[in-house]
Formats: sequence, structure tokens, C-alpha cells
Amino acid sequence: MNVNDILTHVDHTLLAQTSTWEQIRQICDDGMKYETASVCIPPSFVKQAKEYVGDKLAICTVIGFPNGYNTTAVKVFETEDAIDNGADEVDMVINIGWVKEGRYDDVCEEIRILRKAACEKVLKVIIETCLLTDAEKEKMCEVVGKSGADYIKTSTGFSKGGATFEDVRLCAENIPAGLKIKAAGGICSISDAEKFIELGADRLGTSRIVTIRKSMDCITKTEKSVHGAHFESRLVDCE
Amino acid sequence: MNVNDILTHVDHTLLAQTSTWEQIRQICDDGMKYETASVCIPPSFVKQAKEYVGDKLAICTVIGFPNGYNTTAVKVFETEDAIDNGADEVDMVINIGWVKEGRYDDVCEEIRILRKAACEKVLKVIIETCLLTDAEKEKMCEVVGKSGADYIKTSTGFSKGGATFEDVRLCAENIPAGLKIKAAGGICSISDAEKFIELGADRLGTSRIVTIRKSMDCITKTEKSVHGAHFESRLVDCE
Repeated sequence: MNVNDILTHVDHTLLAQTSTWEQIRQICDDGMKYETASVCIPPSFVKQAKEYVGDKLAICTVIGFPNGYNTTAVKVFETEDAIDNGADEVDMVINIGWVKEGRYDDVCEEIRILRKAACEKVLKVIIETCLLTDAEKEKMCEVVGKSGADYIKTSTGFSKGGATFEDVRLCAENIPAGLKIKAAGGICSISDAEKFIELGADRLGTSRIVTIRKSMDCITKTEKSVHGAHFESRLVDCE
Repeated sequence: MNVNDILTHVDHTLLAQTSTWEQIRQICDDGMKYETASVCIPPSFVKQAKEYVGDKLAICTVIGFPNGYNTTAVKVFETEDAIDNGADEVDMVINIGWVKEGRYDDVCEEIRILRKAACEKVLKVIIETCLLTDAEKEKMCEVVGKSGADYIKTSTGFSKGGATFEDVRLCAENIPAGLKIKAAGGICSISDAEKFIELGADRLGTSRIVTIRKSMDCITKTEKSVHGAHFESRLVDCE
């Protein structure tokens, strides 16, 4: 699979607590340049990022993130606020404690309420697979499938584990037609990305694929520049 | 320092993503029994916990937690929602990216807005010391000091480090009179707790001190019960 094809599946992601606008602007620049599916950024940067990219790039943000135990009222408000600020896609975290209590109807109802709040925007539902048993993951495939969400997403990247091949395979085997899969957390090579897509993931939450793509530009530039004796200055451009 | 005296400084805390009501109820029971300053629990449990404990125990919850990069509008809504549900104390996380950008006026203004939203409830401001330089921590002591908040709090417990003696000492040396300190994250022994209080912490966010206190009950019961030949059954009570 061509790296540019993979990039069309990437939500180019920066969700570190210390993120600055300079870093987010770089993520936006890279997302536009390499034509990623979206950039996934903290809620407090959505408005500024939308003004910066206009209609050239989809802006994705996160809701009830990363612990998921905010009240439903807060998740609704956060979703509406994000959309008002220009978000095109929202990735919400389920209430994991409710799953542990077997309150699947409540989990489903919360997603349905968020579905309404998100209007026609893309809604992804993060189930945080590393904290669930296989039986709970299977049940969540069913719940998210009937909630009206667009995607089931494996991980926040802020718990003890990210996406695994096993979990994406499990999701692919258990979701109903129409529901898509986003794998996120720890995806850091082209071969991993290809494997996730092959197993059924339609989106990948990662910043590494763009970094790899940029380094390919560097290599190409460097190869050219060695002949032109501009080796050193070109490498600096690629940092 | 007597363990019961230490407990009056403890916000008995359970903020795991997988927390269930059964676990939160136990935290509330223990908070009431051992007379902790409060219990610190996820927002989605505040209403149920308040109904359960009534006026016997203060309920503390978290705002913009743990990453702090929610919009100010969402933090305000979450604060009002928590208070409507019965929260007596709210622990908010600052926007750490703004600190990294040197936007201290914006950080201060956000805390002031939350101060208003929290009305007369106790407001604690989490600065996440493990992500800040010493110069940034000192500046945040000044900012929180003039914001009207009640406490500066070291850590969420969800980043790469918790409270340290050095950070509590730094806060004690740099905060203005009237502002109090809460140390949180990784506090797990009586001697640690004593040291944090000695250095100037007025509150401790931890679940371990109650656990230690409970184990002291067990030892006492066990000592008594050995003489009464009820050793085994008594131990089960202490689990």
C-alpha cells in the first residue's frame, strides 16, 4: 500500500497536555500538505485551527477525554461547543465504569444523545480496549453498532495500552455493517498501519505516519542535495 | 502525628476510569467512618454519592480532568453541573499549553472565571508539576495566588509523576498568604503524609492513608480475636 494512500486514512493527532499553538499549527500544516483524513487536536485549539485551515482540512477533537466519566450533560455541552468552534469530527469516550457495571443500555443511550448533539458530524466512540475484557469489547461492538455512531475507536492513547491487531480483528468480526473502525494509540510504522487497515480499520489515530512521510521527503531532498553539495542545510529543513 | 489527625487532611480519592458505584460507595463509607476531609470522585458519580452521604461528608470532584485543555466554556459548564449535582469542592486542571506559551494572564483569567462559577465552594487548581519547569511552577504559585482559588494542587495522578517533597516545598515558599496547598499523586505511607503536611500541604489526595488506617483496625481486631479464637472470621471482615 502506498504511503500516500495510508495518509488518507490518518487522523493526524496531537493530544499532549503541553501542546502549544505553534505545535498545533504545524500539525495543521502537515495535515494539509500530506492530505490526511483530519487532524485530531485538543478542544481548546479547535476554533483557532478551524480559522487557520478553513475548508482545506477536517478538524477532529475529543469529548469526555480521556477518562470518559464526565456526566452526559457535560459531554453534550462539550460536543456542541466543539461543533460551534468548527469541529468536523468528534471522538467521545464511553463511561467505562458503566460497562463494568453491565449498564450497556445507559452506555448506548449516552452515545445516542451524543449522536443527536453531533448532528451530521462524524462521531467516533472510544471504548478503551485495554481496560475491557474480550466479552466487554464484543458487547461494545453491538452497542456502538446500534447507537448510530460512525466509528468504534479502540483507544485514547492515555491508558495502559493502545490499538492491537487482535482488538481490531475482534471489532471487525463483531461490528454490524455500516460501522467503521478507528485504530489509535501506539501506531508507529508503515507496516503496522498497513496491517491495521488490512484487518479492517478505516481510520488510524497517529502522528507517526506523517513523520515517516516527512522523513521520506528528507531522504529524497538529501539524495538530491548531496550531488549539489547542500547536504547540511537541507537536513536542517527536515527537522 | 496521629493517623486520625492526618485523615482530617485527606481527600480520599478514587478516580480510576473503571470505577463502579460499588467502589465509590465503599470510598464514601470509608470517608464517613474515618472522617476524611472529603472524598474525591469522578463527576458522573457526584449526584449519587451526595444522595448517599447527605451532609455527613464533603464531595469533591474534578474539572477539565486530567488534561486541562478543554475550553473555558466547558470547564465552566462542568463546574456548574458538578455543583448542581452536589459537589462541595472542585479540583480544576489548568490549560498547561497556555503555560508553555507564557499566556499566564489567560491562565489566571480562566481560574477567575471558574472561581465565579464555583460560587462559595472550595476551588483547587491543579498545575501538574511534573510537566512544568521550576520557573513555571513559581509563576503558577503567583497566578493561582491572585486568582481567588483556595488551593494550589500539585498533580492529577494521571501524568508521568505525582507530588514530590521538592514541589510542595517550592509551593510553600512561593504562594501568598491565604492560599493553601494540596499534594496529590503517589502518596502511600504515613511518613510521606506527615512529611507533606510538615512541608506545608493542608490537603492530601490519596486513597492509601485510609487503607493503612483500615489495616490498623484489622491488626487490632486480629489481636483481640486470637484470644477469642475468632481469628479467621475476623480477618475476612477486614478485607
